[in-house]
Amino acid sequence: MASLRNSFLEKLGKITKEKETLLCVGLDPALPAQRSKNVMSSDDRLEFMRRIILYVAPYTSAIKMNRQYVIGLTIDEIRQLNILVHQNNMLSIIDHKLGDIGSSNSSAVFWFKEEGFDAFTYNPFSGNVLEATKAAHSKELGIIVLTLMSNPEAHFQKTAIFNEKPLFHHITSLCNEAESDAVVIGATDNIVSKDVSEIRNILKHEAYALVPGIGAQGGNAKKILYHFGEKTLVNVGRSIIYSDFPEARAKEFQDKLNNQLKEVKAVKESLTTSSV
Amino acid sequence: MASLRNSFLEKLGKITKEKETLLCVGLDPALPAQRSKNVMSSDDRLEFMRRIILYVAPYTSAIKMNRQYVIGLTIDEIRQLNILVHQNNMLSIIDHKLGDIGSSNSSAVFWFKEEGFDAFTYNPFSGNVLEATKAAHSKELGIIVLTLMSNPEAHFQKTAIFNEKPLFHHITSLCNEAESDAVVIGATDNIVSKDVSEIRNILKHEAYALVPGIGAQGGNAKKILYHFGEKTLVNVGRSIIYSDFPEARAKEFQDKLNNQLKEVKAVKESLTTSSV
Repeated sequence: MASLRNSFLEKLGKITKEKETLLCVGLDPALPAQRSKNVMSSDDRLEFMRRIILYVAPYTSAIKMNRQYVIGLTIDEIRQLNILVHQNNMLSIIDHKLGDIGSSNSSAVFWFKEEGFDAFTYNPFSGNVLEATKAAHSKELGIIVLTLMSNPEAHFQKTAIFNEKPLFHHITSLCNEAESDAVVIGATDNIVSKDVSEIRNILKHEAYALVPGIGAQGGNAKKILYHFGEKTLVNVGRSIIYSDFPEARAKEFQDKLNNQLKEVKAVKESLTTSSV
Repeated sequence: MASLRNSFLEKLGKITKEKETLLCVGLDPALPAQRSKNVMSSDDRLEFMRRIILYVAPYTSAIKMNRQYVIGLTIDEIRQLNILVHQNNMLSIIDHKLGDIGSSNSSAVFWFKEEGFDAFTYNPFSGNVLEATKAAHSKELGIIVLTLMSNPEAHFQKTAIFNEKPLFHHITSLCNEAESDAVVIGATDNIVSKDVSEIRNILKHEAYALVPGIGAQGGNAKKILYHFGEKTLVNVGRSIIYSDFPEARAKEFQDKLNNQLKEVKAVKESLTTSSV
């Protein structure tokens, strides 16, 4: 395995172990003009983001910014935010859902690097998972591929059939072949333990799962923790960043995830023992 | 049909008729640091973009900016570009390939409007085509859904089966139900006339086809023109904007597409006549 590939995953493994947290905070700053609830109290996206980064840092391994909320920020503004993220011993993921032809993907990867991110999310609908993973690793960036998503409207990822298997098997196989760094698996009820187990089995390498759908979307991370163990990064956004006490909420999620990890490990061990 | 929905399509129909051109220019400014060929001669993306907009305007109905090339430009910078596009009687599409959960999609739509775009591209992998179309139309924006793409690696759009039909049928049905404004259909050889005909037949409303894959990617637009007629918008990027004579190249493509449209219309008429 190339050492470049592991740059993001090695750093992530080190940080999650040191800080004892599998929490990733989704930093999605919404203006009051955008919607009626879950909004910032002012129009200053940068100030809001800086404040949340500092609040959650002790309990958090990674910050995930969704591109749909940071459109219009300059390269330098985002770079300054990412410097703050790194100074506080966290990694930074741009949730861009990139998915384009090769030359356009390369352009995006160029700008992600300029912005100071460590990894980005990738949407496999346009194909090019292998090529995009290569482009990411050539810049020492991690790539996190949407595989089985949290919103029920994405059900065809499971019900569409490709080569006699569900579509998400095909996508996972591409991630396996490319040695992509992580897969996105939703925590909501439409995704069950068997799905997660199938994904884990197709991946021959030490990939992570990035898990959205906790908090506002009402999902549960246990089924992912059961199969991916410490190699799980759980994203929580709105329920932390728009809380009156983001610091306390982050700590709560850190503890909850650590307890859930302990629980599922105990269950796994008891299963192993009883089968001997 | 709601009048809002037709805001983008009505304007587009009016402009393509007035200017007699089905050409859309893909304005993707690449820095010399990004790659070895097809790059700007300087690092000034804005100046390059302004120049191309003015060069191609007489022969072009729409400008399509790919987000992967304009990351880091501010809302105001993009808005100024879009004012120039509108002053020159063209529409402006952001090729963002949005595809997220509902709240994040709404955030992106908010920013597209702030940036002054008329329409955006949508990636249906995360579902939410109906909801995203509604969000677009509530802001009087057009939505253009990736349906059958130009790059061969996206072949599972055709080979994956959902409800006993190819996946792109399912996506087209969602566009039909949502009354999305346009579908993206690639012009490359992996997509054949029968595919385009199937898409056209599933759509009950007057949707457009946006066609990439011409020029640098080597495709041919005739099969799309045959089925979508004047409701086709053909995107050409690199072969115009990085040419030494962008103005002349744009004119060439305008003429070529008009000739191809005439040809396919003649073929269609002769078929109708011979069947009588």
